[in-house]
Amino acid sequence: MNCNNSLLSILIFTQLGENEMAENQEILKTSEEYVKALKKMDPCIIKDKLLDKPFEDEDIQKGLNVVALSYDYAKEEKNKEIMTVKSPFTNKVINRFNHIPQNKEDMTKKHQMIYTLAKEVFCAQRCVGSDALQTLFDGTYRVDKSNKGTTEYHKRFLKYLKYIQDNDIAPAGAITDAKGDRSITPSQQADKDSYVHIVKETEDGIYVSGIKTPITMSPYTEEIIVLPGLQYSEADKDCAVAFALPADTKGIEIYVLGPEIKTLKGEFSPTHGTKYLNKEGMVVFNEVFVPKDRIFLCGEYKFAAVFANLFATLHRFAYTACKPALYEAMTGAGMLISEYNGTKGEYFLSNTSEKIFEIYKTAITVKGLAKAAISDAKETESGTILPDAVFANMGKYTSSEFFHYAISILQDMSGNLPANLPFEELLKDEKYKSKMKSLLLRRKGVSIEDQYAINELIRVMVASNEGGLLQFGSKHGGGNKEAEKVAIYGNSLRNMYACKDRIKKMSLKK
Amino acid sequence: MNCNNSLLSILIFTQLGENEMAENQEILKTSEEYVKALKKMDPCIIKDKLLDKPFEDEDIQKGLNVVALSYDYAKEEKNKEIMTVKSPFTNKVINRFNHIPQNKEDMTKKHQMIYTLAKEVFCAQRCVGSDALQTLFDGTYRVDKSNKGTTEYHKRFLKYLKYIQDNDIAPAGAITDAKGDRSITPSQQADKDSYVHIVKETEDGIYVSGIKTPITMSPYTEEIIVLPGLQYSEADKDCAVAFALPADTKGIEIYVLGPEIKTLKGEFSPTHGTKYLNKEGMVVFNEVFVPKDRIFLCGEYKFAAVFANLFATLHRFAYTACKPALYEAMTGAGMLISEYNGTKGEYFLSNTSEKIFEIYKTAITVKGLAKAAISDAKETESGTILPDAVFANMGKYTSSEFFHYAISILQDMSGNLPANLPFEELLKDEKYKSKMKSLLLRRKGVSIEDQYAINELIRVMVASNEGGLLQFGSKHGGGNKEAEKVAIYGNSLRNMYACKDRIKKMSLKK
Amino acid sequence: MNCNNSLLSILIFTQLGENEMAENQEILKTSEEYVKALKKMDPCIIKDKLLDKPFEDEDIQKGLNVVALSYDYAKEEKNKEIMTVKSPFTNKVINRFNHIPQNKEDMTKKHQMIYTLAKEVFCAQRCVGSDALQTLFDGTYRVDKSNKGTTEYHKRFLKYLKYIQDNDIAPAGAITDAKGDRSITPSQQADKDSYVHIVKETEDGIYVSGIKTPITMSPYTEEIIVLPGLQYSEADKDCAVAFALPADTKGIEIYVLGPEIKTLKGEFSPTHGTKYLNKEGMVVFNEVFVPKDRIFLCGEYKFAAVFANLFATLHRFAYTACKPALYEAMTGAGMLISEYNGTKGEYFLSNTSEKIFEIYKTAITVKGLAKAAISDAKETESGTILPDAVFANMGKYTSSEFFHYAISILQDMSGNLPANLPFEELLKDEKYKSKMKSLLLRRKGVSIEDQYAINELIRVMVASNEGGLLQFGSKHGGGNKEAEKVAIYGNSLRNMYACKDRIKKMSLKK
Amino acid sequence: MNCNNSLLSILIFTQLGENEMAENQEILKTSEEYVKALKKMDPCIIKDKLLDKPFEDEDIQKGLNVVALSYDYAKEEKNKEIMTVKSPFTNKVINRFNHIPQNKEDMTKKHQMIYTLAKEVFCAQRCVGSDALQTLFDGTYRVDKSNKGTTEYHKRFLKYLKYIQDNDIAPAGAITDAKGDRSITPSQQADKDSYVHIVKETEDGIYVSGIKTPITMSPYTEEIIVLPGLQYSEADKDCAVAFALPADTKGIEIYVLGPEIKTLKGEFSPTHGTKYLNKEGMVVFNEVFVPKDRIFLCGEYKFAAVFANLFATLHRFAYTACKPALYEAMTGAGMLISEYNGTKGEYFLSNTSEKIFEIYKTAITVKGLAKAAISDAKETESGTILPDAVFANMGKYTSSEFFHYAISILQDMSGNLPANLPFEELLKDEKYKSKMKSLLLRRKGVSIEDQYAINELIRVMVASNEGGLLQFGSKHGGGNKEAEKVAIYGNSLRNMYACKDRIKKMSLKK
Repeated sequence: MNCNNSLLSILIFTQLGENEMAENQEILKTSEEYVKALKKMDPCIIKDKLLDKPFEDEDIQKGLNVVALSYDYAKEEKNKEIMTVKSPFTNKVINRFNHIPQNKEDMTKKHQMIYTLAKEVFCAQRCVGSDALQTLFDGTYRVDKSNKGTTEYHKRFLKYLKYIQDNDIAPAGAITDAKGDRSITPSQQADKDSYVHIVKETEDGIYVSGIKTPITMSPYTEEIIVLPGLQYSEADKDCAVAFALPADTKGIEIYVLGPEIKTLKGEFSPTHGTKYLNKEGMVVFNEVFVPKDRIFLCGEYKFAAVFANLFATLHRFAYTACKPALYEAMTGAGMLISEYNGTKGEYFLSNTSEKIFEIYKTAITVKGLAKAAISDAKETESGTILPDAVFANMGKYTSSEFFHYAISILQDMSGNLPANLPFEELLKDEKYKSKMKSLLLRRKGVSIEDQYAINELIRVMVASNEGGLLQFGSKHGGGNKEAEKVAIYGNSLRNMYACKDRIKKMSLKK
Repeated sequence: MNCNNSLLSILIFTQLGENEMAENQEILKTSEEYVKALKKMDPCIIKDKLLDKPFEDEDIQKGLNVVALSYDYAKEEKNKEIMTVKSPFTNKVINRFNHIPQNKEDMTKKHQMIYTLAKEVFCAQRCVGSDALQTLFDGTYRVDKSNKGTTEYHKRFLKYLKYIQDNDIAPAGAITDAKGDRSITPSQQADKDSYVHIVKETEDGIYVSGIKTPITMSPYTEEIIVLPGLQYSEADKDCAVAFALPADTKGIEIYVLGPEIKTLKGEFSPTHGTKYLNKEGMVVFNEVFVPKDRIFLCGEYKFAAVFANLFATLHRFAYTACKPALYEAMTGAGMLISEYNGTKGEYFLSNTSEKIFEIYKTAITVKGLAKAAISDAKETESGTILPDAVFANMGKYTSSEFFHYAISILQDMSGNLPANLPFEELLKDEKYKSKMKSLLLRRKGVSIEDQYAINELIRVMVASNEGGLLQFGSKHGGGNKEAEKVAIYGNSLRNMYACKDRIKKMSLKK
Repeated sequence: MNCNNSLLSILIFTQLGENEMAENQEILKTSEEYVKALKKMDPCIIKDKLLDKPFEDEDIQKGLNVVALSYDYAKEEKNKEIMTVKSPFTNKVINRFNHIPQNKEDMTKKHQMIYTLAKEVFCAQRCVGSDALQTLFDGTYRVDKSNKGTTEYHKRFLKYLKYIQDNDIAPAGAITDAKGDRSITPSQQADKDSYVHIVKETEDGIYVSGIKTPITMSPYTEEIIVLPGLQYSEADKDCAVAFALPADTKGIEIYVLGPEIKTLKGEFSPTHGTKYLNKEGMVVFNEVFVPKDRIFLCGEYKFAAVFANLFATLHRFAYTACKPALYEAMTGAGMLISEYNGTKGEYFLSNTSEKIFEIYKTAITVKGLAKAAISDAKETESGTILPDAVFANMGKYTSSEFFHYAISILQDMSGNLPANLPFEELLKDEKYKSKMKSLLLRRKGVSIEDQYAINELIRVMVASNEGGLLQFGSKHGGGNKEAEKVAIYGNSLRNMYACKDRIKKMSLKK
Repeated sequence: MNCNNSLLSILIFTQLGENEMAENQEILKTSEEYVKALKKMDPCIIKDKLLDKPFEDEDIQKGLNVVALSYDYAKEEKNKEIMTVKSPFTNKVINRFNHIPQNKEDMTKKHQMIYTLAKEVFCAQRCVGSDALQTLFDGTYRVDKSNKGTTEYHKRFLKYLKYIQDNDIAPAGAITDAKGDRSITPSQQADKDSYVHIVKETEDGIYVSGIKTPITMSPYTEEIIVLPGLQYSEADKDCAVAFALPADTKGIEIYVLGPEIKTLKGEFSPTHGTKYLNKEGMVVFNEVFVPKDRIFLCGEYKFAAVFANLFATLHRFAYTACKPALYEAMTGAGMLISEYNGTKGEYFLSNTSEKIFEIYKTAITVKGLAKAAISDAKETESGTILPDAVFANMGKYTSSEFFHYAISILQDMSGNLPANLPFEELLKDEKYKSKMKSLLLRRKGVSIEDQYAINELIRVMVASNEGGLLQFGSKHGGGNKEAEKVAIYGNSLRNMYACKDRIKKMSLKK
């Protein structure tokens, strides 16, 4: 860690008037307090129509429960080490999602935190906001430096960071624009709102319009952080904007996206889908006012790419933490269903072993690439630390590359029952129970309820509306494979040209 | 074609007292007549509870609509050639699904028929019953021959066939048993009903119990044909049974399987899911009486494998007709969404071309293997014709092998919108329409309604409850990949050993 | 078959003064006569220097032996059906390689002929010349027709065809040019000789210069047939030239290509490499004169693509005959080495079965696509028949796609011995024999000589200079995968757009 | 590091009478001294016959040159950091290959050392002996501990280690036995010499017989270290033996393996094949006497698996260092040939980029897994450090899995010229030079000599006898994929069962 600059940041922090820092004070809301904070707000949330009490909507609640878990876990003693950390800026113990990583140990623990949550909920959701904070920490520092002191985005951001940390807020991060016709630039679009952009600027701040979508967590967050999603040329400099606002700021509309998940209400339905779900939102800005101290980039178009790339690297690194949990869930499901069905004896002495391996090996590889990204992490001048971009991108790429293959194998191992279950009411109806038994009975000692439940879990994970969201997430979350390839090339060019030179030398006469 | 035996069958037919045969008379029900016939019946169909009016159930109707289409198409002049045929047994023009193929031309046309329907509905559903008829035609002939005239299953079957043809019935075929613990045999199962088996035999017939599942079309069929699903040893000879019964026979219960498809009712929802859907059923036999003339195998356990293999080959061949349609649907979807999004210009001059090709090539390969299976088809002594088992199995295997890969590519090409659509009501609400436009606008000239619809179609096809059924179908329909591998080995042994001998000879001293 | 035109060709033939046609006369040289004919010639063949007696060169002899086999096989009674045919033009029985296929039966038998030879020699080599003849048959007909009778290339060709058939010549086909810088056109090349082109035209004929390479069989052929290798624009019309010349025509130089195969002389060395080998040549034209009656295209640049595409389709179809033999050789080798090593018991009851299947399945698929290409073959107006271009290209593509994968599996199954054999002299040296036994002994009953030989065969096939030629051949022979993809697109466009239209229709409101 | 035990080892070392330790003294032979030391020996080395002057044999010299490079590099100032290290036991600066790694930094530098050499020679060869030393260091410690002080293998080994370090010897490691029939155990083999085993034991030592093969570096080493290659049961305890001997010990014969590389002598031939080559040997023990102080395991059959697994993990980890260099060589070759041919413009803006990526990505992944193996390395009680077994095995597995795929792509990118080069003598012959130019000319500015050389290099790397050795090495070096899979399972069981338990919990009623 570059001590001087971290000290600088802390100094700035102190200058913000933070004399009251109480050593080791814990700033950790309960999940109830998180919900209460949401309910105090008045956001404009739209499903098929404007929702009157959005936080009582069933689908929104499933998403909210995931975020709530990150509050609950932080309160549990056994998770303290990985879920919480003392902020170097406030000296208070905070949720690690709101922490700016200082070193490799921080990176490792953050990785464990995401993995731990993902084992339970598949997608922890808070990574986006967390990575947005780290992006702004380093990005604002760089702009200010480039602007040679004429801007003070970093100072503003530190103030905002303190607000987030001191109020234990779980912000959403809004990066991707609607983007319109992919073959033309923002300024060429028929509809200017395809990208979030600055409409006008006043002495007190700016007015912004446009669409960010899909935005994870946006229907149940207190704060929305907006970053530029691409590199921009001068012609598109209005789009080079970063800021943060409360979710219920006047002019912000949040549309709930994705298919409504109506089917899962059964006693045997898995937690994924009934209790937890990732709900994305479309965030629309209608000439929304952003006050000065909430603006972190404002037209410096050359820095749009810096912000976008910082976020991309950080977020793809985050994927290397959650995706292994998903592959492991499929591994476990394959093992359990084989055991229940009596299909293949022991996994390790049978040709089921091939199949389990083909699922599990990607969990290993992605975990390994994550460790490599930490191993080669670089500290920044601003005082944080960034994962190696090549390994982080390759980890995400690999998790995406083999996802459908793993699904395919799990479906193969499962037999056709997951897609052909009878209605679960029948299991509890004495009239039909014996038929259900004849259908579901497999290996001795496995109850038909357990048999039903694992089959339904597998269906939900890999062949359902809920599973469909995971599949698209694996392809496009954090950018698609092309984007990752470009990032890998960009960061490998020097080495690749060295490879070419070696071969040239090797092929020449001695 | 082995004329003598086909003539023999026709002779038997004639002996059945069919003097009234009117040359070229058409026996083609309208789809309304099909539904009317169903409604006249009183089957015991259970979802979460016994259904009072099953054919008014929404999900059942979606399945029924698929079968109805096979009646409608047969009535359309442009489809006559492929959808209908003159039965050599009755001399009447019938739906080709109820025809016993006589030659390669018949095979080719049946293939086209299935492909034509699959382009519209993905799974034509009637293939199972159709293949069961052909299986019984050849299988009963073989048992009788082996029994040296002591049985007359073939004659009984021909009478049944005439009934099916003359009443233009779309029978379901029930092959797969519940099977219980996969590591033990039928007679070792804790629950005897894991397999359909003969409970007792009387002078007039037999009583059968047990479960067949999942059975395509069973919730909306007039007749159910039951075949043995595996080879059986003497200990399990009670399971070596084949017969046919009306779906509302006393003691038969039919349970509707699979997740309820509640979400798709929108104006922009695709026909697949709203109008058409494959609904499987579990068919339970509770000491059901089968009269003698409906019994086609009764304890001849050595022929269980013959029946099962005949059906497997025929049905896997059927898959080589429908699956190319599915791969083509994904090809078309990839082309259309690229065009709408403006992502990649022309498919054939860009790196989108790689992606489209990776989807489309499997359509070509499976079609090619189907043609090879026809090209090497063999006529049987009984007077029908069978596809080459190696090519038929390899065609099905290939369609299964690359299915999830194709899905993966289509999801990659589509961007994340299919999984992140707003509620469709908003498109029609003036208050929100401009926002929807900002979200959905892509290439000039594409309406936001079209944009919405293609995205929703892609989601339904590849990332939904409906799509999940297709995925499991691709893995397990007609047997899984292991089963196909075994069949390929079984039919390739002679050639494989010849390969080994060649190599041995080639490696020896000259 | 379009009888009229085939009759037309036969008529032309007759007009050529062929009254002496003896019904069923056999025109089949012995292999000795083939070699004798070669030795009568005086070609300019260069290895490291000009060869004095080229047909006594060891490497050239290995190639020559392959061609000789096609003469020997035609003489064997058991092969008559597939190796020979009565020419419709001369009414004499000729080697099928020189026959213009008339119908699907001809195609099927030609396919069997190639497969039969490839089982012994991996690459039959004569396909190139054979496909060049068929290309000229149809191509010249089309040019003449387009030229509305102002040219008579077809008549000239028929005369040439008669010469080839009547003298049982095995011509080489020279299609691929040296091509120079791939990013610029022929006329832009720094060295004009990168492409074969017309240098000047006189009343009696043309003078041509340039390079065709690599040209199969060119170092041991009597005749070389030259076709254009690409489509050409008007600027490059000098390259749009087709003709045929004796291999020892003044100004033609033939350079032997590829690594010299010096290692294989052992008693245990396999026939492939010691007796048989594919030797390519570079054919250089130095202002070579082509007399008028040997010119089959001369500047009609729009037809260059026609000729090139005809040849490509025919030759890729030929690959679907030989490549299955190669996959089968690898299958047999995997089976034999497993048996010898005692690694895995029976292939079909062990996890070796997975590996064998992964090799063998491509043999099935490519065979199947070949049958499909025949099944959908189309007769031409000129009176021959062409395989379906989509299936032929897909067959070749598939054989290329999985070749290295199959090699990888065979190497995996073989253990490391193939790459780690001791010198074979030691097996015959009493002093070392017991050590060799300790090394090589595996399953009881397998001699150490057999064990040595199969290991050496596997090394030669998949991990040697000889095997390296097969690998590059699998990638580039008959054009690379990109070329095949383009051909598949070109012939699938109509169907692919129909797929898109269906999806569009399916996604729209009903 | 466990200081106590490392101190213990150092203490033992000191007790060995090493008072003369001179701080920082360099014990680094020149490559000439290495060759001189070899020539002083009198080993029994056999090719087709006993070699009189083995170190003047051309093939052996190519292998010897690789080892020589490891001496040369250690002398170069720029490599000091990675090639040399101060031994904690002797306090002298030694070649890192003979060092027992103490910490993660040591592991990282060793990894860099191997990678650095592999960039030049593809296989550094010395890893086997180096890993054998580390195996013995930890293995002997464990046996002694288990034997509760009744054995002192560790002390003996430390003495041996001092000898190796003080004389800068490059020992070979001999692990794999000939193994005979793979389906039966050592004691069941028809030929007892299929495995190295103890023949008799005397007071002074043991007599051993049997075969180890293939043994890297064995034809040009001073010392051979023998380890058990498998786990053994009590019946096979004679095979549970570890020891070290000079290569010219009476009774040891070394047979040179693999095809003789005769073709590569040209001016344009690449260093790989002409100067450097990996030569394996078969080492035969004919009742060879091993004195007591050179015995490190002697019948403790339960520890055979410990030794074998230690070595396997260490050696697979070593592969994660050299294989990325090979993938990078293919990457560079693909880039260079594309550039020369003018096929595709810039790699990163064309569809060549897809191909390069498919080669290069495995370099990244394997490197990443290596870093993960270091990141999770565990110190041992004996005072060394071991890479994480799961990541090390997965790294090797991945390098093996995609090797042939990478080759396939490089061959695809290269065009067919590598397999179709004319004889290189012609390039220097004025008579033929202009033809060579016409053949080889591609992009402006690339000389035909460079063009020739890169094509020949590619052929040698991926389609030749030399390349064939690399291919088999990729499959079987350090154990095949099955062995790695077993190791991964063995080390992942706990986590995999945890995955299953999570899924079970997740699927149950809440």
